[in-house]
Amino acid sequence: MVKTEIGYTTTDTIMVRGLNLSTEIIGKFDFIDMIFFTTLGRKPEPREKTMVNALLVTTADHGITPSSLAGRLTYIGAPEALQGAVAAGLLGAGSVFLGTMQNAAEMLIEGAKGLPGDAGDEQIREAARNVIRQHKEQRRAIYGVGHPIHIDGDPRVPTLRELARENGYYDVHWRLMDAIAYVLTQEQKKPLPLNAVGAIAAIVAAMGLDPLIARGLSLVGRSAGLLAHIMEEKSAPMAREAWQLVLRDDPRNVLP
Amino acid sequence: MVKTEIGYTTTDTIMVRGLNLSTEIIGKFDFIDMIFFTTLGRKPEPREKTMVNALLVTTADHGITPSSLAGRLTYIGAPEALQGAVAAGLLGAGSVFLGTMQNAAEMLIEGAKGLPGDAGDEQIREAARNVIRQHKEQRRAIYGVGHPIHIDGDPRVPTLRELARENGYYDVHWRLMDAIAYVLTQEQKKPLPLNAVGAIAAIVAAMGLDPLIARGLSLVGRSAGLLAHIMEEKSAPMAREAWQLVLRDDPRNVLP
Amino acid sequence: MVKTEIGYTTTDTIMVRGLNLSTEIIGKFDFIDMIFFTTLGRKPEPREKTMVNALLVTTADHGITPSSLAGRLTYIGAPEALQGAVAAGLLGAGSVFLGTMQNAAEMLIEGAKGLPGDAGDEQIREAARNVIRQHKEQRRAIYGVGHPIHIDGDPRVPTLRELARENGYYDVHWRLMDAIAYVLTQEQKKPLPLNAVGAIAAIVAAMGLDPLIARGLSLVGRSAGLLAHIMEEKSAPMAREAWQLVLRDDPRNVLP
Amino acid sequence: MVKTEIGYTTTDTIMVRGLNLSTEIIGKFDFIDMIFFTTLGRKPEPREKTMVNALLVTTADHGITPSSLAGRLTYIGAPEALQGAVAAGLLGAGSVFLGTMQNAAEMLIEGAKGLPGDAGDEQIREAARNVIRQHKEQRRAIYGVGHPIHIDGDPRVPTLRELARENGYYDVHWRLMDAIAYVLTQEQKKPLPLNAVGAIAAIVAAMGLDPLIARGLSLVGRSAGLLAHIMEEKSAPMAREAWQLVLRDDPRNVLP
Repeated sequence: MVKTEIGYTTTDTIMVRGLNLSTEIIGKFDFIDMIFFTTLGRKPEPREKTMVNALLVTTADHGITPSSLAGRLTYIGAPEALQGAVAAGLLGAGSVFLGTMQNAAEMLIEGAKGLPGDAGDEQIREAARNVIRQHKEQRRAIYGVGHPIHIDGDPRVPTLRELARENGYYDVHWRLMDAIAYVLTQEQKKPLPLNAVGAIAAIVAAMGLDPLIARGLSLVGRSAGLLAHIMEEKSAPMAREAWQLVLRDDPRNVLP
Repeated sequence: MVKTEIGYTTTDTIMVRGLNLSTEIIGKFDFIDMIFFTTLGRKPEPREKTMVNALLVTTADHGITPSSLAGRLTYIGAPEALQGAVAAGLLGAGSVFLGTMQNAAEMLIEGAKGLPGDAGDEQIREAARNVIRQHKEQRRAIYGVGHPIHIDGDPRVPTLRELARENGYYDVHWRLMDAIAYVLTQEQKKPLPLNAVGAIAAIVAAMGLDPLIARGLSLVGRSAGLLAHIMEEKSAPMAREAWQLVLRDDPRNVLP
Repeated sequence: MVKTEIGYTTTDTIMVRGLNLSTEIIGKFDFIDMIFFTTLGRKPEPREKTMVNALLVTTADHGITPSSLAGRLTYIGAPEALQGAVAAGLLGAGSVFLGTMQNAAEMLIEGAKGLPGDAGDEQIREAARNVIRQHKEQRRAIYGVGHPIHIDGDPRVPTLRELARENGYYDVHWRLMDAIAYVLTQEQKKPLPLNAVGAIAAIVAAMGLDPLIARGLSLVGRSAGLLAHIMEEKSAPMAREAWQLVLRDDPRNVLP
Repeated sequence: MVKTEIGYTTTDTIMVRGLNLSTEIIGKFDFIDMIFFTTLGRKPEPREKTMVNALLVTTADHGITPSSLAGRLTYIGAPEALQGAVAAGLLGAGSVFLGTMQNAAEMLIEGAKGLPGDAGDEQIREAARNVIRQHKEQRRAIYGVGHPIHIDGDPRVPTLRELARENGYYDVHWRLMDAIAYVLTQEQKKPLPLNAVGAIAAIVAAMGLDPLIARGLSLVGRSAGLLAHIMEEKSAPMAREAWQLVLRDDPRNVLP
């Protein structure tokens, strides 16, 4: 039988994971409850809700990024199809931007295997050195460190770390992530600080969530950021001008 | 100058609509606050938050829909690119499914122009008849009524109507939407009840939001529903079987 | 029964519209044959093949457009998922860019209804004036005229018109398209010349193809152009620099 | 300077890789010429054109696949946005379906390094055993063998192999691919024959093309197949029925 445990429907009822959507969910669950309930089959604890809110707020986006620019450039060609502009903005969430939360969380979960909850600093650093060595050997990128703009430190990281601490999620995964940045900085003799991707990966690992959920939640957050950008593009357009700015940078292009 | 009012960034600060993302937003705003703040430049009132939560919860999806099925079928081809599966599931949010919230809200805003807040029932019905006549003349679809499965009434509608009432959003737009369903049912001599799209459009119109936001919020909600489906597809797959079920329905296809 | 006439498969055979893919199609059909065969169930005549090649070549893209820029910006975030970058570049093919071939072809087919094949110039102009008047009354855009860069005339149009003439496709649809540009230019007292979208729409209408195919073929052509851009982005990147160029245009953004 | 070598534009000219699009390309290049010219900067030799046509024809799709089903399910929600349905159908071209041409071609190019053009059969088999061992050690999938439906042999393979032979492309890469299938079949004591992905990867490797181009060309081919499916969905719909077939398979769903 082809089926899903998420829900089913009859002519007069919609059931979601055993509850009646109309009488037991709508108006009683907020959106974070619903994300947990459909994905994990349970409502979140208050501290889980706090962290997921922080994650969604952080990934919503801000300013001009490749993602918001792709969304806006798509919108000006097909303003009747908002879904296409949002989809275009999401499609860059891969192994370089945003999607890396998944990879970083996988790295932390793998790297922290066997570490006791009360591991000492030296034990954590040893694990960090192992992670770095293995990734180098397999020529895999190390995620969660460095930023093209925030070269001296990602301003979101201290807030996310503090929030994790307050809610009991500053655990071995977080400490491993911090140690990876520390060891890399020492080895490379230039600062390679933790970035927001690393912080969110640490949160996700500390919460015991599947790393794929990290990428998924970042898509939910980003879809809201893209909505904001596209609403602004509708009322105060800039994408066409941005495109022409790029065109004009090559003097062979001659515009009217 | 090419710019956005949503935000800008320096090497050590990220600003979003005048606030410092790291010190004034993360950990202090929940996700609904952030959606309002980035999109509209202000935080929501409590009753707005209630309604937006209801809207996101309602659109998150449930069970097997064309959207969740498209997302799952995409995931099984490219499990390394979750963003593609979510994007595929969003791309069907158009003039037939989900995206129609936008069209229905536009219809209500246009149709309710000039109606006083305390319009009588007959006045509302007259406006409904006008909307229906104009749409027929221009051969445009009327959105927000009827459902392929919930033929006797969409179970989500009473809950959404009650929630709107409790929060002061059962206004002329809602009444116009209800009247359109009523008049159509009478004209066609068969029930053509309001559906969830119509209810959400009425809420969006009553809240004074841009109808494009309705479609946008439905994409945010749906992206969460797609995440749930794809997480399940990862652990308890069904898309491949669903595909083969469709294949086998045509006896010319012979599978091993 | 759920089925498609395009094809079916058994454990040892793949059939496409009645032919055996392996023994009767691969190596015997070129790509244009295959497009016609799967879509229309027949191979193209030589002159149809000439025109479809011209259409695909014209829509393949060139230089920096919103579409190629969106594709490149997506690629740099998710280089492991080429399909996402191509999809992002296609998603802007809507009512403003590219997708307008469909709208323009629909306009020409509708507007030329009842015109005899040998209609005189004045009769064609009368039809053009009707199209323009109707579109104004219904506040619908007129497609196929004007260009943001080629303000004095789109250089592709004479070539496409000549090619249509040589192949017997310069018919009433083409003449109507030319007349629409002529009448608009007279009315507005500034040049509003035919653009490539209008020329391709005229070709599609003259060939008797469904206008939706026009949009579809433009997507096929554009997917090739996007491939070229993304291959270049891989070896000689520019998208990251383009993004930063846009960022730097707003002095509030401070980059390292 | 932010620039592309693919092309630039002035108010009256469009240049593509040094040629004038309007006077030197449209009407003179066919689509395969254009793909080579924009991507590689040169026109293809006749035998290259033969192979690329075969590749595009093979990947165009046929019958009901996860890709065509995702495209159709998207189309019925947003028929006004064909680009979204095509994009949705492309997004599953990843590490499991279609996109694997890239991975398989990379495997062959890497595995054939150092093999002389006239390597003996045993030398080729030794290389095949090396590839298999390395992939097992690194827990990476071996691409290009086996098929869920064509369990005794993919019917497209002999045709593609013969075509490669006739055009001088049956080289060490092809022989390595054949040897990998042979060795795996012996090791596993059950047939694990070459599939169309493996054959196309061998062609791409033999032609000396970048493996990323293999995935890219498969997207171009598939976009044509998706167009055929969506044109049929418009005139003879089946996606809604396919969806309901899946729904009805779970008896908890009760449809009218």
